[in-house]
Amino acid sequence: MGLLDDTLKMIAPVDESRAEAVQRRLDNKTKPLGSLGRLEELAKRVCLITGKDDPDVGRKAVFVFAGDHGVVDEGVSAYPRAVTAQMVYNFVRGGAGVNVLARHIGADVIVADIGVDHDFEPADGLRIVKVAKGTKNMAKGPAMSREETVRAIEVGIGLVNEFAQKGYGLVATGDMGIGNTTPSAAMAAVFTGLPADKVTGYGTGINEESFKRKVSVIEKAIEVNRPDPGDALDVLAKLGGLEIAGIAGIVLGAAANRIPVVVDGFISSAGALAACELKPEAKGYVIAAHRSVEAGHLAVLNRIGHRPLLDLDMRLGEGTGAVLAMGLVDAGLKVLKEMATFEQAGVDSEIIN
Amino acid sequence: MGLLDDTLKMIAPVDESRAEAVQRRLDNKTKPLGSLGRLEELAKRVCLITGKDDPDVGRKAVFVFAGDHGVVDEGVSAYPRAVTAQMVYNFVRGGAGVNVLARHIGADVIVADIGVDHDFEPADGLRIVKVAKGTKNMAKGPAMSREETVRAIEVGIGLVNEFAQKGYGLVATGDMGIGNTTPSAAMAAVFTGLPADKVTGYGTGINEESFKRKVSVIEKAIEVNRPDPGDALDVLAKLGGLEIAGIAGIVLGAAANRIPVVVDGFISSAGALAACELKPEAKGYVIAAHRSVEAGHLAVLNRIGHRPLLDLDMRLGEGTGAVLAMGLVDAGLKVLKEMATFEQAGVDSEIIN
Repeated sequence: MGLLDDTLKMIAPVDESRAEAVQRRLDNKTKPLGSLGRLEELAKRVCLITGKDDPDVGRKAVFVFAGDHGVVDEGVSAYPRAVTAQMVYNFVRGGAGVNVLARHIGADVIVADIGVDHDFEPADGLRIVKVAKGTKNMAKGPAMSREETVRAIEVGIGLVNEFAQKGYGLVATGDMGIGNTTPSAAMAAVFTGLPADKVTGYGTGINEESFKRKVSVIEKAIEVNRPDPGDALDVLAKLGGLEIAGIAGIVLGAAANRIPVVVDGFISSAGALAACELKPEAKGYVIAAHRSVEAGHLAVLNRIGHRPLLDLDMRLGEGTGAVLAMGLVDAGLKVLKEMATFEQAGVDSEIIN
Repeated sequence: MGLLDDTLKMIAPVDESRAEAVQRRLDNKTKPLGSLGRLEELAKRVCLITGKDDPDVGRKAVFVFAGDHGVVDEGVSAYPRAVTAQMVYNFVRGGAGVNVLARHIGADVIVADIGVDHDFEPADGLRIVKVAKGTKNMAKGPAMSREETVRAIEVGIGLVNEFAQKGYGLVATGDMGIGNTTPSAAMAAVFTGLPADKVTGYGTGINEESFKRKVSVIEKAIEVNRPDPGDALDVLAKLGGLEIAGIAGIVLGAAANRIPVVVDGFISSAGALAACELKPEAKGYVIAAHRSVEAGHLAVLNRIGHRPLLDLDMRLGEGTGAVLAMGLVDAGLKVLKEMATFEQAGVDSEIIN
């Protein structure tokens, strides 16, 4: 038995039986019933996930997994493959979007080279956990072997286990990988059953011609590999990516540790979907950060039963939407912890109508 | 000439001519073009409003105006009028929703008694700037005199002027006033030309019967007062409220000081709309915080040409949505200030497609 199987066994459904008790506490705060909307939902969700009455999420981390993609050879991205490694250096130096927004909300950025086609020197804040130097071209055969896929998932699980031990109580997922909207769209198509052109978007900014090529590459990859939609590991291996598998591992690890996991945009959601197809009970531990501009994102979120918190026309990835949403989770918990009750404040609570 | 007239004269249109230059700087950051969506918009807007290349908003304040409403006598609210004063005490003690969320994003809460039917003792953080002990019942005649209305607007202008001098560079509006969705809906109906039942919502949580009464009270108030839609002061005086006029003053004062003003939900937007009807050039200084659950909110925002940033099913008022949005404004400015450029990071910027 490996880490993945052990983790899957540890994941229990979120105990929803305390939901009413938590809502009663929220209803006792000095505000009209339910008037803080989704902030109240967030507070409640974290209480249920953690099993605590007054959860303090403690430290927050966003895991940014970086990996390269063989399918870039098919001309599906607006940027050259070398940008993946270049951006890893940018993350390590603190200059990327996710670094700026993580500092803004007080989260640590953990950069993990899980599959970049480049040899990095060790650096502070960089985890070298490489499973392979990128995936193979899925238009010609499986992107990864099943064994590589399991190892990449276990990298994610291992990281959450480590950070949970260190006192981190809220985690988020992020990605970097030139070309990675293509595998994400392919996975979305297979898991949701939608046609490729309904779940494919413009990624970093391709033109119409490249978009059509991208759709046909995805169709070809599905045809060549014949992934089994009922076998999530098969879909992830044949059409996914190393960073996407790492993200699936974060989701499973978070669920096993009863830690809420804030899932970023399209690529992260594809990883989360793979995790939830492997273990549907993991769905209850997910918080969907934002609605990405990518076409297939809502279909993926619908499949895991989540409604995004933010809709800011973002499509950067890296975990940028997820860290903004972590700020909202914090805000929700503060509502529960810091707001006065009607009794404490001496405010009339009786509704007259 | 009074403060209001002087302020209206000082308001110049936002200089949009630098928009392209700011966008070029954003486009040079290590991210696909436009991929930080509305965060980029926010950064750009603050640059244009302030006229600065690297604006630092400095300290942030949310002004929470409290006032009572004579129209509560008609049974339009779910809570008794005494709750307005009780909530002012709650704000001063730091236990209300806006206090919690303002602390979360690092803004100061300035509570202003502009029209509460209660005598407060002086307290830290409470400005006693009372214009009247509540409005009159607008179902029977004008809510305020024109002179009271101007004084209440000038209270708002005076506060922004004072805080601008102290180094505050980002302000937000908030409201407290049992019954104040009713005047806001009445103002919305007159300014937008929509029928009352299209802009009326459930406020703090009234039932269907109270909702119908609320709509007919609004219709009656419009019929009795015959406000002139082309005269914003007339509409505000006859159908508005003291806290709504104070909020209009904040918007006008912010525009005159070239400070961005984050406008909260339905009540705040009614105040902002009155300000923009008085001086359409003020529109460019407004940032619409969130989409309230209240029915008329989007119609009001459309009229001032703004799209809300957040949609979190909130309907508390107080400035709660506005302070959350102030956090996003900060985030946008940090993107502009802290993100590395392609050159600094050594990342390929050329798009290949």
